[in-house]
Amino acid sequence: MSSHKYVIGIDFGTESGRALLVDVRDGREVATAVHVYKNGVIDEQLPGSGVKLEPDWALQDPDDYLEVLKRAVPAVLEAGGVNPADVIGIATDFTACTILPVTAAGTPLCTLPEYRTRPHAWIKLWKHHAAQPEANKLNEMARQLGYSFLDRYGGKISSEWLIPKVMQLLDEDPAIYTAADRIIEAADWIIWQLTGVETRNLTAAGYKGIWSKQDGYPPPEFYRALDPRLEHFVAEKLSTDIRELGQKAGSLTPEAAIWTGLLPGTAVAIGNVDAHVAVPAATVVEPGRMVIIMGTSNCHMVMGVDEHIVPGICGYVEDGIMPGLFGYEGGQPCVGDHFAWFIENCVPAAYAAEAAQLGISLHQLLEAKAAQLKPGESGLVALDWWNGNRSVLVDADLTGVILGLTLATRPEEIYRALIEATAYGTRMIIETFQSSGVPVHEIVATGGLPDRNKMLMQIYADVTGRPINVAATHQGGALGSAMHAAVAAGRAAGGYANIVEAARHMAHLREEHYTPNPVAKKVYDELYAEYVNLYDYFGRGGNDVMKRLKTLRARVIGEN
Amino acid sequence: MSSHKYVIGIDFGTESGRALLVDVRDGREVATAVHVYKNGVIDEQLPGSGVKLEPDWALQDPDDYLEVLKRAVPAVLEAGGVNPADVIGIATDFTACTILPVTAAGTPLCTLPEYRTRPHAWIKLWKHHAAQPEANKLNEMARQLGYSFLDRYGGKISSEWLIPKVMQLLDEDPAIYTAADRIIEAADWIIWQLTGVETRNLTAAGYKGIWSKQDGYPPPEFYRALDPRLEHFVAEKLSTDIRELGQKAGSLTPEAAIWTGLLPGTAVAIGNVDAHVAVPAATVVEPGRMVIIMGTSNCHMVMGVDEHIVPGICGYVEDGIMPGLFGYEGGQPCVGDHFAWFIENCVPAAYAAEAAQLGISLHQLLEAKAAQLKPGESGLVALDWWNGNRSVLVDADLTGVILGLTLATRPEEIYRALIEATAYGTRMIIETFQSSGVPVHEIVATGGLPDRNKMLMQIYADVTGRPINVAATHQGGALGSAMHAAVAAGRAAGGYANIVEAARHMAHLREEHYTPNPVAKKVYDELYAEYVNLYDYFGRGGNDVMKRLKTLRARVIGEN
Repeated sequence: MSSHKYVIGIDFGTESGRALLVDVRDGREVATAVHVYKNGVIDEQLPGSGVKLEPDWALQDPDDYLEVLKRAVPAVLEAGGVNPADVIGIATDFTACTILPVTAAGTPLCTLPEYRTRPHAWIKLWKHHAAQPEANKLNEMARQLGYSFLDRYGGKISSEWLIPKVMQLLDEDPAIYTAADRIIEAADWIIWQLTGVETRNLTAAGYKGIWSKQDGYPPPEFYRALDPRLEHFVAEKLSTDIRELGQKAGSLTPEAAIWTGLLPGTAVAIGNVDAHVAVPAATVVEPGRMVIIMGTSNCHMVMGVDEHIVPGICGYVEDGIMPGLFGYEGGQPCVGDHFAWFIENCVPAAYAAEAAQLGISLHQLLEAKAAQLKPGESGLVALDWWNGNRSVLVDADLTGVILGLTLATRPEEIYRALIEATAYGTRMIIETFQSSGVPVHEIVATGGLPDRNKMLMQIYADVTGRPINVAATHQGGALGSAMHAAVAAGRAAGGYANIVEAARHMAHLREEHYTPNPVAKKVYDELYAEYVNLYDYFGRGGNDVMKRLKTLRARVIGEN
Repeated sequence: MSSHKYVIGIDFGTESGRALLVDVRDGREVATAVHVYKNGVIDEQLPGSGVKLEPDWALQDPDDYLEVLKRAVPAVLEAGGVNPADVIGIATDFTACTILPVTAAGTPLCTLPEYRTRPHAWIKLWKHHAAQPEANKLNEMARQLGYSFLDRYGGKISSEWLIPKVMQLLDEDPAIYTAADRIIEAADWIIWQLTGVETRNLTAAGYKGIWSKQDGYPPPEFYRALDPRLEHFVAEKLSTDIRELGQKAGSLTPEAAIWTGLLPGTAVAIGNVDAHVAVPAATVVEPGRMVIIMGTSNCHMVMGVDEHIVPGICGYVEDGIMPGLFGYEGGQPCVGDHFAWFIENCVPAAYAAEAAQLGISLHQLLEAKAAQLKPGESGLVALDWWNGNRSVLVDADLTGVILGLTLATRPEEIYRALIEATAYGTRMIIETFQSSGVPVHEIVATGGLPDRNKMLMQIYADVTGRPINVAATHQGGALGSAMHAAVAAGRAAGGYANIVEAARHMAHLREEHYTPNPVAKKVYDELYAEYVNLYDYFGRGGNDVMKRLKTLRARVIGEN
């Protein structure tokens, strides 16, 4: 029998789930398999019945998640040639807040014939954006009644989070609310399927459910103020037994063992959230080192020893990233998306022809051209608000600006200005953390962008003035889950005592890293000052033109 | 012998000259011919010698102008099948300020072998931009010494105009200054070639030479303050005999008759400027109707009964457009250029493919898509300063802005926003005129854009709230010149007594016209208010970010 022990991490994303088989000793990624969800993001009509959905809805099908267990896990076991007896643990991470109503046995209501045509019976995906009126009401009420929990979330609860989504459900289909014995994060539901036991993870509860270690959930009076029917929401639909990351949730049931090909009794960790689990996978288990997951959006996570109120962040949660530290999270909702928009909408045919001739992508061509430019050479500065601003203004109604355009402005100059703008946005977040008492002296990047655009990485280093390391793994979620599986399995079984120990062995940085260039930094200091001026003017009430244009747009579109 | 009488107008443009043969009775355009200048815009090296030019220089070759007389005029006579005896007059219009140093006989210094390799001996074209330091010095000195003439030119003399160009010549090649017996507008030099007589036209003197009917040229003390060698500049190099438009300058010389194929003795009108001569050709001979020449840039001309100081206009000149009225001129330096920049730099390959498939131009495709949008639907507002702002801010260092961008923004939305921005810029000019005491109740459009983009015309009507008519002629310059030829010939010869009478017979509007849509106007009022807010903030010192970015750009480009 092999002396090697293995763990499996499963990362449940928006379009697919990925299983990763990892060697416990050194974090070596032995095999990986992806299963694409059959029903993906359900945003037009319900599968089967064809019931139409309203705009801004985004649902999912729980069967798609189970298929990941049934297909991707056996696939990695086979690909890795690993004996199931050597797999000491399994753990998962999920998008959040992604919630579903279930029976007392954990059966999703949407799988029952009587509820299959009712949109509110299905899983509300994190990016279900139809609960904005409810979020507005919640925020208004919390402010009026003086609840301090708003301070923990940058002053505002997002429409993506638990309570607004539940309020919408109750408003629009109260029978579903009544029929639901539990309302649960998909992150916790999947653990229930694996172990047969209902548990609730601290990260989702803390970042998305307004729970804190010190205060728990808001009191019944608060829910009552929102809606009398919600008064006992926590007692009736949630759980107050909130479990720390890395704990063992239970053991694999015989049924789940058949799905996965693993042995019954294999340790299963408490559920987790995709962004947060990526932090130790990027080697970060201490304060001062910010992890940025750079992809379609940027998610900024850093830990601190103490509690600090940081304006405009997504939230902070004690033990929220790892036990013993406060986990702080900020975000930019439009980064890779920003560049993709530019490539799709703003690059002329001549560039497409040039890229085709060189056999490279348009992104690569623009990067090559933009890399020839010095900082400040374009004469441009942009506000990176194509999808609003999360941190630190928490304002979805802000929009993008490009300033400094002339007849000599070239596409690669705009492309570079957009990249720089997202870097200024990150610097604004870092400086807000820093001035609020949460230091950031290093960045560790992970996600898709660091692989794809080295110029972007150098610009981030130059703009922020922080050295940037890059996580070795391409699968921060799945590796982070696998590390938590090793902790849940425990040292006796060949795993680790805690996440710090797991990270020391299983998480790695690449050789490549980015050091701020002092000459570029100096120019970027000047440009950043311009960005801040414009940021404050358009973002803090100096000129609310963006909101007025949005209102006007909605009005003229409505006048048919 | 035919009872019809004819006139010939010649429009000397930047790249070519055009002759137009016109029936005096009704303005019918009988024949036209274009001669493209062999040396065109000389901005890299001198013809023949290859002497290199500095950046921002733009010269021309006087032989190119003579070739227009020798080729285009005989061509229209032949094409029209007209007997030269029936041609009662000839007149010209020219770009301005386009000046050259000549001998007492009118010979351009650049045609003399000893000066052929000296850049300052050549014709400085209107868009020669190398005299900015001299313009700055002139403006500074005029302000310091309290000269009120600045008020007539929106507070600032452009580097394109006579005195800065002469100052640069004197600074950099004083021997040429000394060798020049006269310094003269090309508009007047060409008349000298046709008639053998040196004359000076009022329009060029007034709009480009700081001359006014009331005050004449600035006094010698002013020129002395600029440079002691310039003290007697007016007496030595110019003329104080300034002649009104439509007057007869003289008769065609035998030599010019051979060049043109016309009869010696044919009446020749005083020189004229291309923009101003287009006003009566657009039927406008009274106050209140603004002519906008819409092309790569916009030139706004309107006449008033009284003298008013209008901030930020290009200038106003008594009798400057026609005798008896004050001629006011404003301008936007980037209109058609703006859209051309967008088409070249910002439209994706998919659109190019779609246009190709439909067999239409990218402009036409974008117009078709943009025309589907309602006012306000894009959520965008732009500042049209891609080439700075002439009226009413007179600031070449301002740059363009697009605000309101989102991930859903499409190319046609940006395209429409750029068109709207130029319309807002025109409304700002109109409202500035209006509030300064120069009413504008109707627009007559001429130039290339009205033909090409009907959506643009409707947007201008909706934004400005003024009805827009379109001049019938496609050759506003050449037809306007022909009309002045008919006035110079006089009623006895079969022409007209004055330009009002000539316009009544020879100038026409098209059937098509554009009426403001009150619903669109109301939305545009809101958008214009946003434009004005941003205009004032970025243009009047609220935030000088554009200037700082330009300065930074120049610095980093300089640091090699």
